[in-house]
Amino acid sequence: MGEQGENWILMVTAQTPTNIAVIKYWGKRDESLILPINSSISVTLDPSHLCTTTTVSVSPSFKQDCMWLNGKEISLSGGRFQRCLREIRSRACDVEDEKKGFKIAKKDWEKLHVHIASYNNFPTAAGLASSAAGFACLVFSLAKLMNLKEDHGQLSAIARQGSGSACRSLFGGFVKWDMGKESDGSDSIAIPLVDEKHWDELVIVIAVVSAHQKETSSTSGMRDTVETSPLIQHRAKEVVPKRIVQMEEAISNRDFSTFAHLSCSDSNQFHAVCLDTSPPIFYMNDTSHRIISLVEKWNRSEGTPQVAYTFDAGPNAAMIARNRKVATLLLQKLLYCFPPQADADLDSYVIGDKSLLKEAGVGTMNDVDALAPPPELTTSVPAQRTKGDVSYFICTRPGKGPVLLTDENQALLDSKTGLPK
Amino acid sequence: MGEQGENWILMVTAQTPTNIAVIKYWGKRDESLILPINSSISVTLDPSHLCTTTTVSVSPSFKQDCMWLNGKEISLSGGRFQRCLREIRSRACDVEDEKKGFKIAKKDWEKLHVHIASYNNFPTAAGLASSAAGFACLVFSLAKLMNLKEDHGQLSAIARQGSGSACRSLFGGFVKWDMGKESDGSDSIAIPLVDEKHWDELVIVIAVVSAHQKETSSTSGMRDTVETSPLIQHRAKEVVPKRIVQMEEAISNRDFSTFAHLSCSDSNQFHAVCLDTSPPIFYMNDTSHRIISLVEKWNRSEGTPQVAYTFDAGPNAAMIARNRKVATLLLQKLLYCFPPQADADLDSYVIGDKSLLKEAGVGTMNDVDALAPPPELTTSVPAQRTKGDVSYFICTRPGKGPVLLTDENQALLDSKTGLPK
Repeated sequence: MGEQGENWILMVTAQTPTNIAVIKYWGKRDESLILPINSSISVTLDPSHLCTTTTVSVSPSFKQDCMWLNGKEISLSGGRFQRCLREIRSRACDVEDEKKGFKIAKKDWEKLHVHIASYNNFPTAAGLASSAAGFACLVFSLAKLMNLKEDHGQLSAIARQGSGSACRSLFGGFVKWDMGKESDGSDSIAIPLVDEKHWDELVIVIAVVSAHQKETSSTSGMRDTVETSPLIQHRAKEVVPKRIVQMEEAISNRDFSTFAHLSCSDSNQFHAVCLDTSPPIFYMNDTSHRIISLVEKWNRSEGTPQVAYTFDAGPNAAMIARNRKVATLLLQKLLYCFPPQADADLDSYVIGDKSLLKEAGVGTMNDVDALAPPPELTTSVPAQRTKGDVSYFICTRPGKGPVLLTDENQALLDSKTGLPK
Repeated sequence: MGEQGENWILMVTAQTPTNIAVIKYWGKRDESLILPINSSISVTLDPSHLCTTTTVSVSPSFKQDCMWLNGKEISLSGGRFQRCLREIRSRACDVEDEKKGFKIAKKDWEKLHVHIASYNNFPTAAGLASSAAGFACLVFSLAKLMNLKEDHGQLSAIARQGSGSACRSLFGGFVKWDMGKESDGSDSIAIPLVDEKHWDELVIVIAVVSAHQKETSSTSGMRDTVETSPLIQHRAKEVVPKRIVQMEEAISNRDFSTFAHLSCSDSNQFHAVCLDTSPPIFYMNDTSHRIISLVEKWNRSEGTPQVAYTFDAGPNAAMIARNRKVATLLLQKLLYCFPPQADADLDSYVIGDKSLLKEAGVGTMNDVDALAPPPELTTSVPAQRTKGDVSYFICTRPGKGPVLLTDENQALLDSKTGLPK
């Protein structure tokens, strides 16, 4: 180990995006390895709007493995953390730092402890798949720290064991999680389909919907579905495999109509099998339903899909607009139907890529009040304008995969103490 | 025809119950004959609380077929009315009234016109399957008027062509609609399983839930599901046939646990395939979801099901309590979670069998305010007590099939003019 005393600290900081599935993962065939009953496809979200930053560090002075999430110490004793740490440590390689004057041999990693600090640049508990970005970032940064030789695909199989959907956050653009066939999970990995530049007209608007009811965790929810739903196996074996092929083709061809149809149908089918679970699981609420109705009516009135929607295990809507022009129209319609509360600050009601708000011609609350009702809604029931049903909107786009942050100012741990800054 | 002038009027009045499916009908294999893709099972509701009364009359003085629904003239030109009228007329037999001194020969029926008046003893447009009771009553009363020799099963095949679920209203108790095999629909008929006395401990509470969104009609909804849902055929071919067998057995054995499990699961699966439709169909809303959560939590806390729930093509909940004691507890819990609005009249908030309200110890609005929170809810999220989410409750029970009303005071048409009273 180090030859000049034991005070050195080695540190790596990385940033990893979150992702949203357009063909859904729901149901495991192996609970402990986290092997899914079907493949899934996701779009990676731009990390400048939604991402996790993680700093991992190692030092002979550390007494135990520790982790801080958003500044608060959390336990690492959970099986999923332990499994990721174990898998990475077992693949660790020699690390030598001539400048700091130490060398860590492969075998030393078993004895060294790590400090981990992680931070989400978006509100936690907003149902925005923070565990996907979190476990991806943990695995990616630890792999760099411990000098693993594995490629991103092989790392994705480790991240998968932390949180299934985390494996898809190892790449940017559109990503497939191949369910694999092996019982050890070695081929249940993420595969990049196209990078984020392939289809760069797409704009994504996320409505963070206010939830009144406590939600079922996705871990227990998907277990209940696999155990009780008479429809889930038919979905996994007969429906999804065809959709995966069609979705890959739609993405490759930038065929928005097929992409939107598949995304919406698959989101709805995922929520259908949740409802087919005993007891039933409801993730979408009346606000989610209103957002779907708005998009469906608009798409039908245009004759061809303008916007795709997809909902994960919660009421939040992720809407994917075919281009920027459509996205500004979408934002106008959404702000009309779901205006901010009177005392709200518009600047915190629409976050992320704020230029979309400007392009939509909305700069002040008065501009929101002046918005015209979406014509496709007024033909039937007059649009409700209830305040408070949406907490805020995030404007974003497809984004890149994990990156290392080399600027020490971006590290979350102090390079002297190894504690959170 | 009549020998003593043409001024006679022949009149029949009947009363027919509505029904609620516990194994759901959703999807037709023949749109025009109304042949379903799966069999279904329903419970007939007590006509003293929910029923249709219909008076049909014939006279040589009538110039055309006319119908009044709840006092308002409606068109009989729709295909479903025409089909029922044609099917019944083609089976009409000789009728002779010695007292009034006329005879109608079989062949005369083609030339004679009918007047029909129908009345629902419950609010229309409340999503309470008024068309089921309505078409059953139309067919039953016309069959009596025209002296058909067909039995109730054969009449059910005619009522089915008016509204699918109407066929199940030809019998009391629990009723199976056998999907049949014949392409002409002759074997797609209702079959009585047990009469209303077989399982007379059951008590039914219906929550009429306030709907904000316009609902998809069941006719177009089930067509869309059959055309677009990848799950519906699996449900119809693989899931429902097994459930039909299990449900028949549960009813025969008065096995409430199995009955409740099947009823709830099948209701949820019906709504799941609605969600799997493109565009998705939402019949349940947040209030429906809260009712399900309440019942599910209570059933789990008791270890064995106390209450079954089922939802038709709308947000209303039909809850079936295993006995009267359970039903009073259910009503207390429901009134706690869904209290009437401050200016409401308790007497119009709980209708039907009002003795249940007395047994629940609730006589005044003060009694509602004094209700204790359901213990199974307080353990997690505190129960919301939002007023106005439920319009009213109907307390009822399994009931009898169609009956003739012989008291002329109960007729809806004037025996002299043939017009609504």
